Amino acid sequence: MNNRSALVVLSGGQDSTTCLFWAKHHFKNVCAISYRYGQHHEQEVQIAQAICAEHGVPFTALDVPLIGTLGSNSLTDSTIPMDAEKPADGLPNTFVPGRNLFFLAIAAVYAREHGVFDLVTGVGQTDYSGYPDCRDAFIRSLNVTLNLAMDEQFRIHTPLMWLDKAGVWALADELGVFDVVRERTLTCYRGIPGDGCGECPACKLRRDGLQKYLATRNH
Amino acid sequence: MNNRSALVVLSGGQDSTTCLFWAKHHFKNVCAISYRYGQHHEQEVQIAQAICAEHGVPFTALDVPLIGTLGSNSLTDSTIPMDAEKPADGLPNTFVPGRNLFFLAIAAVYAREHGVFDLVTGVGQTDYSGYPDCRDAFIRSLNVTLNLAMDEQFRIHTPLMWLDKAGVWALADELGVFDVVRERTLTCYRGIPGDGCGECPACKLRRDGLQKYLATRNH
Repeated sequence: MNNRSALVVLSGGQDSTTCLFWAKHHFKNVCAISYRYGQHHEQEVQIAQAICAEHGVPFTALDVPLIGTLGSNSLTDSTIPMDAEKPADGLPNTFVPGRNLFFLAIAAVYAREHGVFDLVTGVGQTDYSGYPDCRDAFIRSLNVTLNLAMDEQFRIHTPLMWLDKAGVWALADELGVFDVVRERTLTCYRGIPGDGCGECPACKLRRDGLQKYLATRNH
Repeated sequence: MNNRSALVVLSGGQDSTTCLFWAKHHFKNVCAISYRYGQHHEQEVQIAQAICAEHGVPFTALDVPLIGTLGSNSLTDSTIPMDAEKPADGLPNTFVPGRNLFFLAIAAVYAREHGVFDLVTGVGQTDYSGYPDCRDAFIRSLNVTLNLAMDEQFRIHTPLMWLDKAGVWALADELGVFDVVRERTLTCYRGIPGDGCGECPACKLRRDGLQKYLATRNH
């Protein structure tokens, strides 16, 4: 635990919610920010808000519709059928170009305005689904760019960077929030909280990780 | 001249307008993008649009009000008196935190959507007024960050990076657009096109550079 404050980029999903509790464990003060950018399931913002309210975390939601409309993608444009997995020849069409760049850049400006320079994000490289903006090299480069853009010393924390989904479940369990993360968060592309639809790529990844973790946990 | 296409981030001021003509000289196809972000003088967007229309350049203007409201600054908040110069202890309050980061990140996503990977911006380090996001190190770092964010190969061009204002006038003259830049662009913080009010920091910088250039031009 340190005396600093941290801002968590929170989507209401498994990963960022686990990061919220990680931040609460490591920082004296924690606040959270969510974005409405035209994603199919804006209820994830309400879920993020409710989790924050229940755990005493100040919460802000910002409207950034431009993020969803600038680059074509199936996550914000319901006329495009979602890729079930990464195609061999490129990025999955669920990739929203620049999303994590905008999320973290907006978070940085917002945080700086409140005297906060520690940012926490749930991105990870292990199960990264082909999204380039989940990789460690991108995050480190962005950290330097943010520092240079505003002549400040931001620190982007990525507690999940090298964990697989089973490891994320293990971390939630260590933090004493396994049930909260399992029951309250929304990961499913079809908008069903908790264990979700069980069939979409996000649910499969989550479930496989859960089964793998539970197999070790019960021993 | 090369066969590629370039997207110019255009504000309708002296610097970015000079860059527009630099791009027309070096690229086969040129398009331009402007932003409405709550700046006092949104007429600069109309000026940018008119210059593009007169010179056959496809033009887009996007609304990004969040840029102006995220961080407090005197350029978008008329209740804050503008600093006339950089204070000894920090950044001038005309600094809009993250502005060039957002401008170029949005331009990159927009450009990629149109198959364009060359971006042109009028930022420069020589007369940079204390804005950290005008420096070369920031631009180079951002270029890497954009490439990593989208797994692409963007090239950010900064033809004015090492020029002083007299040098920018000289470049416009070389490109045959001295009169267009002098008469049509808007630099003045008070919103007066061309030679402007002559008294605000932006007008002074522009005028001093013009006088310096004209002194050498007439020899």
